[in-house]
Amino acid sequence: MSGEEAAAQQPKTEEQKQDTKPEEDKQNEQQPPPAQEAEKPQDEASYKSLVLSGYGGYDKVKLQVKKGELVPKAGEVLVRVKACGLNFADLMGRQGLYDRLPSPPVTPGMECSGVVEGLGEGVTDRKLGDKVIVMNRAGMWQEVVTVLTSHTFLMPEGMTFEEAAAISVNYITAYMMIFDFGNLRPNQSILIHMAAGGVGIAATQLCQTVKDVTIFGTSSASKHDAIKENGVTHTIDYRTMDYVDEIRKLSPKGVDIVLDPLGGSDTCKAFNLLKPMGKLITYGAANLLTGQKKNLMAVAKTWWNQFSINAMQLLQSNKAVCGYHLGYLDEEMELVGGVLSKILDLYKQGKIKPRVDSVWPFQQVGDAMRQMQERKNIGKVILVPEAEKEEKKEEN
Amino acid sequence: MSGEEAAAQQPKTEEQKQDTKPEEDKQNEQQPPPAQEAEKPQDEASYKSLVLSGYGGYDKVKLQVKKGELVPKAGEVLVRVKACGLNFADLMGRQGLYDRLPSPPVTPGMECSGVVEGLGEGVTDRKLGDKVIVMNRAGMWQEVVTVLTSHTFLMPEGMTFEEAAAISVNYITAYMMIFDFGNLRPNQSILIHMAAGGVGIAATQLCQTVKDVTIFGTSSASKHDAIKENGVTHTIDYRTMDYVDEIRKLSPKGVDIVLDPLGGSDTCKAFNLLKPMGKLITYGAANLLTGQKKNLMAVAKTWWNQFSINAMQLLQSNKAVCGYHLGYLDEEMELVGGVLSKILDLYKQGKIKPRVDSVWPFQQVGDAMRQMQERKNIGKVILVPEAEKEEKKEEN
Repeated sequence: MSGEEAAAQQPKTEEQKQDTKPEEDKQNEQQPPPAQEAEKPQDEASYKSLVLSGYGGYDKVKLQVKKGELVPKAGEVLVRVKACGLNFADLMGRQGLYDRLPSPPVTPGMECSGVVEGLGEGVTDRKLGDKVIVMNRAGMWQEVVTVLTSHTFLMPEGMTFEEAAAISVNYITAYMMIFDFGNLRPNQSILIHMAAGGVGIAATQLCQTVKDVTIFGTSSASKHDAIKENGVTHTIDYRTMDYVDEIRKLSPKGVDIVLDPLGGSDTCKAFNLLKPMGKLITYGAANLLTGQKKNLMAVAKTWWNQFSINAMQLLQSNKAVCGYHLGYLDEEMELVGGVLSKILDLYKQGKIKPRVDSVWPFQQVGDAMRQMQERKNIGKVILVPEAEKEEKKEEN
Repeated sequence: MSGEEAAAQQPKTEEQKQDTKPEEDKQNEQQPPPAQEAEKPQDEASYKSLVLSGYGGYDKVKLQVKKGELVPKAGEVLVRVKACGLNFADLMGRQGLYDRLPSPPVTPGMECSGVVEGLGEGVTDRKLGDKVIVMNRAGMWQEVVTVLTSHTFLMPEGMTFEEAAAISVNYITAYMMIFDFGNLRPNQSILIHMAAGGVGIAATQLCQTVKDVTIFGTSSASKHDAIKENGVTHTIDYRTMDYVDEIRKLSPKGVDIVLDPLGGSDTCKAFNLLKPMGKLITYGAANLLTGQKKNLMAVAKTWWNQFSINAMQLLQSNKAVCGYHLGYLDEEMELVGGVLSKILDLYKQGKIKPRVDSVWPFQQVGDAMRQMQERKNIGKVILVPEAEKEEKKEEN
């Protein structure tokens, strides 16, 4: 289901008071392949969906129960969703700052995991009961979804649904930045901002697949133990220290790569921190998120636009400036799928492991978004369709 | 000898009418190590030097015979120069468009090859008679030069002095652009402008060390056979065709890498030609060279500055913009030397071979510069100190 289709479906559905349903299955348990799942009786053919009703604060995303039955079209599968990933783009989208999210009313969500429950015409590469990772432009925060099979990827043996909902967007983003644009090689150094965030955790792990990489990681001090344990070489508390000064003390010439999720003036700092042949990879604008609503948008936009460079300046500096956002690669599923395949290999080899910060039921989506937007998370924030699922915090 | 020293030495020397000397040795012949070269009688202690007297046309570079004897300082070697490379930066420098060339009067030249004839105090890693490739910020267009040993690299067995003067700047430039910033991988595609130029020839050869790379190469039609033979997959006559249209016909999505030596509006075209995850590497401004003198500078500068990009535009495009110029890496000899070492390995393996377009004696430096500036060359333009050396054109 494309994002546009997700949006288009909204008017056809009815909003209902949400029923509290008993938790069906503990999602992390291994289940026998549900061969007859497609015929499983669905109580009065309805499904839960999180819908962004308009741009604004946390309360703009509401749980709806939609009537009707999703039917996979040719080339699509129907997936019963077990867990969904929350991403910065979803927070931006809620504020109207992410142009890849179709206009409200729309179901957000770029990734989820689940079980194939229906096959559209001509589908031969997936079968009922397959556990899959799903990526899409939008529309994944829903109890069931229909997507093209090319947007689904088989979960490796032993991977939990939560991990599966945490691995695609963050690790693909980190992988393509580090190994495609960044071209990270042994003995190099990298600055990872928000090292406790989803991409930060992924990037830190991926850097360790290369020999002798020095990782500078920023986070608030309370998260330093966690990011250090995850592999950060030098932790920096960006709230109390000037990260540029800290890095220069240890590495006077700067670093080889900066991953920049912040934008604005931090992008300029990143550029200046690069060694010759260094690469700046900007992939977000977290600095724009100054509050629940985009009240400071104008100011933030000005900051953002401060970083601009022309060819002559670049040439004289021997540096690279790269922009990355997975959300704009949705026409490139072959490329992206190839990357995910490499990531799943690393997972199978035990070299990477998604860290789940917390798991929230759909009706607590506002709290989940707040957890991420207020930078309280260490690792991935996960949403699950089940109503009764308790918030879970992993401490290690 | 640093560029500044080269400049500082000028006032101490005298300009003399140049003596025509018999050709000493055919430079490509293997010679026994000249163990006593340091004591070789030098006729009245003088040496020929090409000196840029002021910014302007071809006639601004003149042959001088300088009196006195160059003595290597601690850590330096004295090298008797056998061949020098001509680079675009030298043409830019002559017009005052290259800020890494010290102010006139100054001896230009970033690369040469020759034989070690003297050792400064403490030099243990070079010995008399060593055949070396030499790189420096400036000052290499001279019969003898003094340089830090870290700026010299042993020539591989069987390499001619002409090849040795043609391999460092062009191949290092091409290598770092293609494999560091460009991160070229199998099955990718690349656009190489000026594919018959020194960097173009080098880049084309280096791309073929990676499997199944599609190379689009531009040159005037008369050079198409030569660049095709060198490895270009699709030749494009930029004088009669729109290269963007030609590439789009064959590869509608564009290319993975563009090497851009042109600047100005061509940099914009290059950016637009990139596939998602594509890399634009700008490394020159040949478009600025509209004539012998910089009369169109103002216009050209405007063009140049047209290409400018900010972080948000980059992020939404999933592209990289890189700037490269070896001239600004002169503090990074360890990095650069490491790259040259890999290049010399490829040479030894027979995977690359510098192509010499023509060889000119010092007193014909104006003609040599014209050959390059008017885009008549296929491969490297070489200068040699010998007066009688005939212009030589390799046809294959």
